[in-house]
Amino acid sequence: MRAVKAVVPFKMRGAKTRLAPFLSPDERMAFSKAMLRDVLHSLKGIEVTILATEEFDSECDWAHVRLNPHDLNATLNEYIRRERTPTLIVMSDIPLIQEWHVHEMYSDGITLVPARGGGTNAIFMRDPSRFKVDFYEVSFLKHVAIANERGLPLKILDSFCMSTDVDKPEDLAEVLIHCPKHSCAYLRSIGVRLSYGKSRMGVERG
Amino acid sequence: MRAVKAVVPFKMRGAKTRLAPFLSPDERMAFSKAMLRDVLHSLKGIEVTILATEEFDSECDWAHVRLNPHDLNATLNEYIRRERTPTLIVMSDIPLIQEWHVHEMYSDGITLVPARGGGTNAIFMRDPSRFKVDFYEVSFLKHVAIANERGLPLKILDSFCMSTDVDKPEDLAEVLIHCPKHSCAYLRSIGVRLSYGKSRMGVERG
Repeated sequence: MRAVKAVVPFKMRGAKTRLAPFLSPDERMAFSKAMLRDVLHSLKGIEVTILATEEFDSECDWAHVRLNPHDLNATLNEYIRRERTPTLIVMSDIPLIQEWHVHEMYSDGITLVPARGGGTNAIFMRDPSRFKVDFYEVSFLKHVAIANERGLPLKILDSFCMSTDVDKPEDLAEVLIHCPKHSCAYLRSIGVRLSYGKSRMGVERG
Repeated sequence: MRAVKAVVPFKMRGAKTRLAPFLSPDERMAFSKAMLRDVLHSLKGIEVTILATEEFDSECDWAHVRLNPHDLNATLNEYIRRERTPTLIVMSDIPLIQEWHVHEMYSDGITLVPARGGGTNAIFMRDPSRFKVDFYEVSFLKHVAIANERGLPLKILDSFCMSTDVDKPEDLAEVLIHCPKHSCAYLRSIGVRLSYGKSRMGVERG
């Protein structure tokens, strides 16, 4: 696909509170940035706007930071209302995403990528002006309904990697197992490693 | 692919204990059977052996039940040791699987389908006699290592649907959201429905 834009919402300070007390506030911030870098890597070659809660250096040529102190849905809907260029919205906490996933998202209408727990981790809109986003709660079902109401062709991308948003300590195990570059390296650098519980994997700090 | 066999391990009584106290023992058994039916439906047309802990009626023409009172890994490895026919091993608690997933699994060597938490929810073996299974704990990484040690081409199937094994009450939400036929109908029939917590979906009983 020739011209595609991408928007990546990003919260830095006060993000990922469910990873406390496993990670300190500074570590959560550093880890959030590492996950963002993995996500941005998958979007290489695409013009990316990071909708951030505060200024920071993305350290990434193809991404520029735009401040967004407002409600995410309102901001995104204001952004896409007049946008006709095919656009991706990709969450910043899905570090297992790879470049080929992004290509799989391209479609003739709307592509939704379900998160665990009923969320939506990414959306592709061929014509953003015809869609409306509604994140939070069971956003996946809400987005399915919006696409159907508006008569937009709907593709659902079935991906474990993209369904994995990292919110809770147990999610860190997925990062260590599947090992996306920056976020896995960061966790290892602070001594986080896999541990084997009774019936499911967890993480511990060495 | 012409001739393919499938093996589905199935535990009935005493299964899914982490769904207690949300579901009673009888309900857990009925729900396990409903999930199995969804899995068997995806394997339509394939000769399926259900490795079961006790006799029961699979109500399914293409699946026969074989009793397995022994260790799962030992039984599976004994089974595949002399088997040259392409074979699938599919867990019985992944009701979101569909027929097209099964076709996606076919490959020239080994296909692994990662579960959340480091497990393996399904395996395809082009030549089972060249492989060895090692379920439990981080079986995904163990299976990757076995395929690599034995020089077998490895495909990893990235699927949210197939990664979703239903073990805990919160997993029931995935069944209600993505709605595989038999298991979703069963949960609804006993009054299980989605509930909206603070930041993530759960389930409740009406």
